[in-house]
Amino acid sequence: MFFQVIDVLGTIAFAISGVLVALNKKMDPFGVLIIAFVTAVGGGTLRDVMIGVNPVSWMTNMTYVYVIFGATIFAILLRSKINYLRTSLFLFDTIGIGLYTVVGIEKGIGAGLHPIICISLGTMTACFGGVLRDILCNEIPVIFRKEVYATACIIGGLTYFLLRKFMADSNLIFVIAIIVVIVIRLIAVKFKISLPSLYKKEVE
Amino acid sequence: MFFQVIDVLGTIAFAISGVLVALNKKMDPFGVLIIAFVTAVGGGTLRDVMIGVNPVSWMTNMTYVYVIFGATIFAILLRSKINYLRTSLFLFDTIGIGLYTVVGIEKGIGAGLHPIICISLGTMTACFGGVLRDILCNEIPVIFRKEVYATACIIGGLTYFLLRKFMADSNLIFVIAIIVVIVIRLIAVKFKISLPSLYKKEVE
Amino acid sequence: MFFQVIDVLGTIAFAISGVLVALNKKMDPFGVLIIAFVTAVGGGTLRDVMIGVNPVSWMTNMTYVYVIFGATIFAILLRSKINYLRTSLFLFDTIGIGLYTVVGIEKGIGAGLHPIICISLGTMTACFGGVLRDILCNEIPVIFRKEVYATACIIGGLTYFLLRKFMADSNLIFVIAIIVVIVIRLIAVKFKISLPSLYKKEVE
Repeated sequence: MFFQVIDVLGTIAFAISGVLVALNKKMDPFGVLIIAFVTAVGGGTLRDVMIGVNPVSWMTNMTYVYVIFGATIFAILLRSKINYLRTSLFLFDTIGIGLYTVVGIEKGIGAGLHPIICISLGTMTACFGGVLRDILCNEIPVIFRKEVYATACIIGGLTYFLLRKFMADSNLIFVIAIIVVIVIRLIAVKFKISLPSLYKKEVE
Repeated sequence: MFFQVIDVLGTIAFAISGVLVALNKKMDPFGVLIIAFVTAVGGGTLRDVMIGVNPVSWMTNMTYVYVIFGATIFAILLRSKINYLRTSLFLFDTIGIGLYTVVGIEKGIGAGLHPIICISLGTMTACFGGVLRDILCNEIPVIFRKEVYATACIIGGLTYFLLRKFMADSNLIFVIAIIVVIVIRLIAVKFKISLPSLYKKEVE
Repeated sequence: MFFQVIDVLGTIAFAISGVLVALNKKMDPFGVLIIAFVTAVGGGTLRDVMIGVNPVSWMTNMTYVYVIFGATIFAILLRSKINYLRTSLFLFDTIGIGLYTVVGIEKGIGAGLHPIICISLGTMTACFGGVLRDILCNEIPVIFRKEVYATACIIGGLTYFLLRKFMADSNLIFVIAIIVVIVIRLIAVKFKISLPSLYKKEVE
């Protein structure tokens, strides 16, 4: 139940981030809705397709569809005031990527895959919705350039597998790994830490 | 037989639309062919991958391959005169999206999915070939911005499920839903109806 | 063993080509790594997803992961000197697409598909990593515009099926087809042969 609430909050944050990018690109309502969907479910879809889960998860759980519809309409109607919600959305988003990372990892474990592949799947689940959003909007994906976003997922994933060596309580491991992702992202944003572009050094 | 003819006409229209966009991007013959293929079969491929049909449909039916090859060569050779065919192509395309929408819906029903998901699959089948074409050509997908295209598919899909509550003849439902898609698109283009961009309101 | 060496060399060449494009786009280290991965395994992933191999191949063989990691770190560290390796990388890349083409074709044969589809799968395996790389970097895929790249794969694929009519030794066919791809690409680059853009003729 608790995780379902997080999942819904994360889906809302992802969908709204899609709406905001799509509105900036002057899309029509249908385009906005599609981008919201792709942002919210794109990462999980890619993961499911690559490990052979079909139909992909969101197609068999209508909760996602209703939440994304609702969030999209909400964000379109309140788009001039959405700035007031920026902090909440950032928190939802951050909690969401924590959850999605660990969900992706556990799906990879369920498919019998190597820890590194599982961490890739977790990171993909958390990040590739945003990547697909940016591609559809004809932008270079923002997470490839600016944010400590995937890095937080990767470190959370490493923590997950490290803890599995020492702890037996899988629920606790699940929660700790999520918290690691969240804390790293919060610290990175708070102190404006980001990975450097490697470009400048190249032209030295 | 009748539906196969529609299917071939739709495939021709989609392939030629791919050729025209690719020529504008100064692609070489191979690039043009690939874009024609992706436009014609991209939507169905995405649908099949997401519901777990593999190999994807066009790989096991050579008709598509031959039709797309033929349409591509035809469009390249006659590219300076293709404007004369614009109305025919528009009609083929419109009939094609009607058919593909309903085919996608019925594949979703066959996979036991919820009506809303089925309508999404139908719309995806009809529209995402064009979306992939635009992404490969580095454009923001045109259907996200200008056309009453997906909207026609969605309304056609809603009609399909509405009719299923009242009618038993599945062939008739199939045909009516296709006609609904076609009529809406024709009316929208005739009267230049399109969904508004939400952007302007945003900056009010 | 011999083919594994080729496979590793090809993977290195593909990963490094991804690194170089990503660095030019001023990506951070994480973005560079992702682009390297996508370039190296993207074509095979698309092929596997479309014919229903899952989990996709690279997820069950850690060699690819380690090689791509290594090649990425190597290319980032030596990025100012990578020009000295340009010829070696071009050769690795060329040998790589030869191998990947034929591997893709044989996977298609294994799935019982038509020769034309098998050649498409082979070409996709060899070329679509680069296509995905360019899409993620917000470029029109270079192989659609300039290079005799896919053309070499297609001719190699045709050779493969032609030889199967006359020869029984499948290993020999495998090797000859690879060599055909390599030779065509080398000749094309040596003599600066490329397919013409069809655009100019269009505006005549």
